[in-house]
Amino acid sequence: MTSQHSTGGTVMSQGADRLGNVDTDMRERGLFLVFEGGDGAGKTTQLDLLEQRLHAEGHPVERTREPGGTDIGERIRSLVLEHGQGDVDSRTEALLFAASRAAHVTQRILPALAAGRTVLSDRFVDSSIAYQGVGRGLGVEDVAGLNAWATQGLRPDLTVLLDVDPEVSAARRTARGESADRMESADSTFHRRLRQAFLDRASVDPASYLVVDASRPAEEIHAAVLGRLREVRP
Amino acid sequence: MTSQHSTGGTVMSQGADRLGNVDTDMRERGLFLVFEGGDGAGKTTQLDLLEQRLHAEGHPVERTREPGGTDIGERIRSLVLEHGQGDVDSRTEALLFAASRAAHVTQRILPALAAGRTVLSDRFVDSSIAYQGVGRGLGVEDVAGLNAWATQGLRPDLTVLLDVDPEVSAARRTARGESADRMESADSTFHRRLRQAFLDRASVDPASYLVVDASRPAEEIHAAVLGRLREVRP
Repeated sequence: MTSQHSTGGTVMSQGADRLGNVDTDMRERGLFLVFEGGDGAGKTTQLDLLEQRLHAEGHPVERTREPGGTDIGERIRSLVLEHGQGDVDSRTEALLFAASRAAHVTQRILPALAAGRTVLSDRFVDSSIAYQGVGRGLGVEDVAGLNAWATQGLRPDLTVLLDVDPEVSAARRTARGESADRMESADSTFHRRLRQAFLDRASVDPASYLVVDASRPAEEIHAAVLGRLREVRP
Repeated sequence: MTSQHSTGGTVMSQGADRLGNVDTDMRERGLFLVFEGGDGAGKTTQLDLLEQRLHAEGHPVERTREPGGTDIGERIRSLVLEHGQGDVDSRTEALLFAASRAAHVTQRILPALAAGRTVLSDRFVDSSIAYQGVGRGLGVEDVAGLNAWATQGLRPDLTVLLDVDPEVSAARRTARGESADRMESADSTFHRRLRQAFLDRASVDPASYLVVDASRPAEEIHAAVLGRLREVRP
């Protein structure tokens, strides 16, 4: 797993002003924004608010999610997440999510960014590092290496981590009547380890993360996200 | 991709004689035998002959194939190989085959070897190195690293490479009325590169390979395989 090159984090805008017109290669690259956090942390609410705001401001937006995001990705997602398929071992699970992510990056995220669209994704690599690397014990380094290869080194311009106590998010899910899928039905120790895994990712690269207390009101969190986005691209 | 340990290549027979009885841990580990080569090289014929011979000698045999070999593996196989699913990019394809292989090793191959069965597999890691690493241009090193992780470092005790001119094997497939799937329908340059990729794998580790001219009569090839097997485990 040696071949990696970073295609994220930079804004490829050179050329457009000088030439006076914008083609696919020259146009300003879109931002890649990811929302992470345990289930019940409020990612969907925040993604909805941000998508509406960007639309209102006239920014083209590509909204997506993982696992999934493409036709083959959705089929892989159903292979892994469905109940009753028999046990899927951790290594197979991590490879399937990486495969789904590779298709997602190639078919959907990179083309949207190149076309100048802002990509909003519900989960990305950090979810695999938390769930498979830490939660399933495969190791952060191995799962990070696997996913760096799967994503061709693409990294989000900003990851918003909605941090919440696992007991609070479990209560939220129960309150809205959701049943637990195979991932969510693991025990509370597992969820505490997941929470720490996400926080650890943010702590080693604070410039690329916004960590927010997900128990705050949704509008306050949304305002914090917008404030941080203005720093990423004024 | 740092965590690898070899679980193949050694015969874990210590303990059984001394203790006078054999449990799962102490019993002689089965041999892991893989047949590789392009489609039409005669792998099925040779696997049939070897399986019959081992059965006749009273050896317990586990016959399997890749991609596939498990329930989830067969579902992954159909995801990749079917026509009409839209293009699957090379990286996604390599990760799906690695996922299928991880399940195959965990659910089927390692338990069979531990139980003292001889495992006969139609294809293993070298097929991915040839098809994805060389054929699709992902690189031998990356695909080898990915698969070392997926297989927990398991390596065959012996790989029989049925080497054949791509034009001969294409004629064989046509003669038996087979239609080409997505993999096989690639052009002849692709197949020549595949052939060389398999030969290259054998040349760096000759002690673990038997390379045979697949145009020889099936019974001659079978005899060569049996002769070599007696060297691996007299």
